[in-house]
Amino acid sequence: MPTGSATVGKITPQHFQCAEPLTLQNGAVLPAYELVYETYGTLNDNKSNALLICHALSGHHHAAGVHSDDDPKPGWWDACIGPGKAMDTNRFFVVSLNNLGGCHGSTGPRSINPDTGKIYGPDFPNVVVRDWVRSQAALADHLGIETFAAVVGGSLGGMQALQWAIDYPQRVGACVAIASAAKLSAQNIAFNEIARQAIGSDQDFAEGRYADEGINPDRGLGLARMIGHVTYLSDDGMGTKFGREIKSGDFDEGDEVEFQVESYLNYQGQAFTRYFDANTYLLMTKALDHFDPARDTDGDLVEAFRSATCKFLILSFSSDWRFSAQRSQEIVDALVKAKKNVASAVIESEHGHDSFLLPIERYTAALGTFLNRCLDERSGTLS
Amino acid sequence: MPTGSATVGKITPQHFQCAEPLTLQNGAVLPAYELVYETYGTLNDNKSNALLICHALSGHHHAAGVHSDDDPKPGWWDACIGPGKAMDTNRFFVVSLNNLGGCHGSTGPRSINPDTGKIYGPDFPNVVVRDWVRSQAALADHLGIETFAAVVGGSLGGMQALQWAIDYPQRVGACVAIASAAKLSAQNIAFNEIARQAIGSDQDFAEGRYADEGINPDRGLGLARMIGHVTYLSDDGMGTKFGREIKSGDFDEGDEVEFQVESYLNYQGQAFTRYFDANTYLLMTKALDHFDPARDTDGDLVEAFRSATCKFLILSFSSDWRFSAQRSQEIVDALVKAKKNVASAVIESEHGHDSFLLPIERYTAALGTFLNRCLDERSGTLS
Repeated sequence: MPTGSATVGKITPQHFQCAEPLTLQNGAVLPAYELVYETYGTLNDNKSNALLICHALSGHHHAAGVHSDDDPKPGWWDACIGPGKAMDTNRFFVVSLNNLGGCHGSTGPRSINPDTGKIYGPDFPNVVVRDWVRSQAALADHLGIETFAAVVGGSLGGMQALQWAIDYPQRVGACVAIASAAKLSAQNIAFNEIARQAIGSDQDFAEGRYADEGINPDRGLGLARMIGHVTYLSDDGMGTKFGREIKSGDFDEGDEVEFQVESYLNYQGQAFTRYFDANTYLLMTKALDHFDPARDTDGDLVEAFRSATCKFLILSFSSDWRFSAQRSQEIVDALVKAKKNVASAVIESEHGHDSFLLPIERYTAALGTFLNRCLDERSGTLS
Repeated sequence: MPTGSATVGKITPQHFQCAEPLTLQNGAVLPAYELVYETYGTLNDNKSNALLICHALSGHHHAAGVHSDDDPKPGWWDACIGPGKAMDTNRFFVVSLNNLGGCHGSTGPRSINPDTGKIYGPDFPNVVVRDWVRSQAALADHLGIETFAAVVGGSLGGMQALQWAIDYPQRVGACVAIASAAKLSAQNIAFNEIARQAIGSDQDFAEGRYADEGINPDRGLGLARMIGHVTYLSDDGMGTKFGREIKSGDFDEGDEVEFQVESYLNYQGQAFTRYFDANTYLLMTKALDHFDPARDTDGDLVEAFRSATCKFLILSFSSDWRFSAQRSQEIVDALVKAKKNVASAVIESEHGHDSFLLPIERYTAALGTFLNRCLDERSGTLS
């Protein structure tokens, strides 16, 4: 399973304008909305080779390839999407979108509220995982895809894949949830809450109306990102990456001292504020906190999975403590009890939660083998 | 080893005014300083039964008993200090102080700078663990204690106990380091840096001169505390304590929803700002980050321990991920290689780093047995 330099090349984002109103889970109605998305590979004639990629907290539609010849950085899941890669664009037609409520081109807090003619900001309604899945189904309709060969996601993306399996059993051939959870732990909710508090307590947050005022809660959003960053890495992984290297100065001499890890975090926090919206960050963390497919079944996850008919692949990483292997095991246990077709693996990695973004051989092999087999079986059935 | 309601009763803090100048590790000189401290139990005639308690990041001198009859809360280590408890005040004379740079009565950022007649604030010099140990030795001189039967501390307190063993081998009978580390990991430094950034980016921090301006960085300090709080608990422990209970509202109906863990954290953060100083928090986290007894021995911890002559007890807790059992094991390994007398245990507990404050039976039994045996052997030697 090569994961080298093979690339989908230059990609142009596309736009789906949905004129159908969308009634959200909380009762709010979006009269219309837009989703920005990218596709990689070619949809086959019987439209049986489509993969849907669902993104995580800070993700977006640009999952693979580059946007221009001098684009310095490929899409966020380029390690896994491309010719011959785990999501092999020689075989699959891969669809990747920016979720509703996002800040990379889909309708969200940065969009104009048609009711007021002004930026939504904090007035953009709360969106939950189930809402995303419904809007993704509308995109699938638009693309003429009745059934996805698989819906694939990591972290919050994995939650969307699970919800697809439950809500649209006839439209999903396989569900791949990587480094995910059936619901967040109290610790996870706590970290999200601290991130939200950091944003909300920045005076430049202006109760979410910062864009109207031409300001931005850089410090709060930067802090939120720093918290995320530390918790997405493992202790050992950070040790390997940074050790306790002092960047400059000598503490004993009273100089201002910085450890490498400090300047790295500060850089990451500041960089994030240039491409991410604070209201979107709040929305995404709330969607994470409230994901709970068993809410409709009195907390019974086995019962929640009852409607699903697809195959499942549940992957996790040994050093991921934010979405630990134990959380994935809970999903697997429920699926087994519900008598579903489920494969799973815990992948050894020292890179914590971020592992799902990396070209780790056993991981990409497991993912690629599963998806290719799904497509082979599907082609066999359909031919 | 009973850990019940036995108490040292009503305690009055005492003050030690040191007129001797203290030259700190970074070259700064404190011309004089004050330490506030408490004692529990009675110093015996040959002064062989003294225990020194060193406090952690947010600790202070008030470790046991109460300050008044209607005091609702005993000292922070009341679970372990008292008649018949692990640190048995029927046998030991226990000394507990607020460290230099603290905010509970000892000289620190809230004190008046004699050079300016104004509050030190950010001008209070950086203090490192070694400086604390020297000031604690001055307090011991004042109390007429040549040798402590043991120096005992958890977390940052354990670092002070280790430094005592290295710097004053003749003055320490035993060193007890609980839930501690020979130096912080990059992850730990990262969490501290985020806490510092939260404080520093609060506009009411005013570059540390908030007290002069009659303001306080409540939001930043509250965030710092919340980060600490989450990382001092374990994921499982938080799950047991809070689950995912929703406090109020219904997300699906668009209400403002709070999980129990969120309101708990917010309460803890806000309460902290009423009794803790932001400059002290910065100082304490920097002391944590920079603790590294092997700095003088080219990173060789075995060599750093060479001078020590005391017994060691190194305790850690199974669910503590901020100061994991692995970190304690590194201390034990170095002590064994340095051929020191060392006992150690990993205590099962789901309460994370905070376990060291709790009356966990195997923990208090291990601590009490070790200390009592030390005193028995010491009495045998001295009699």
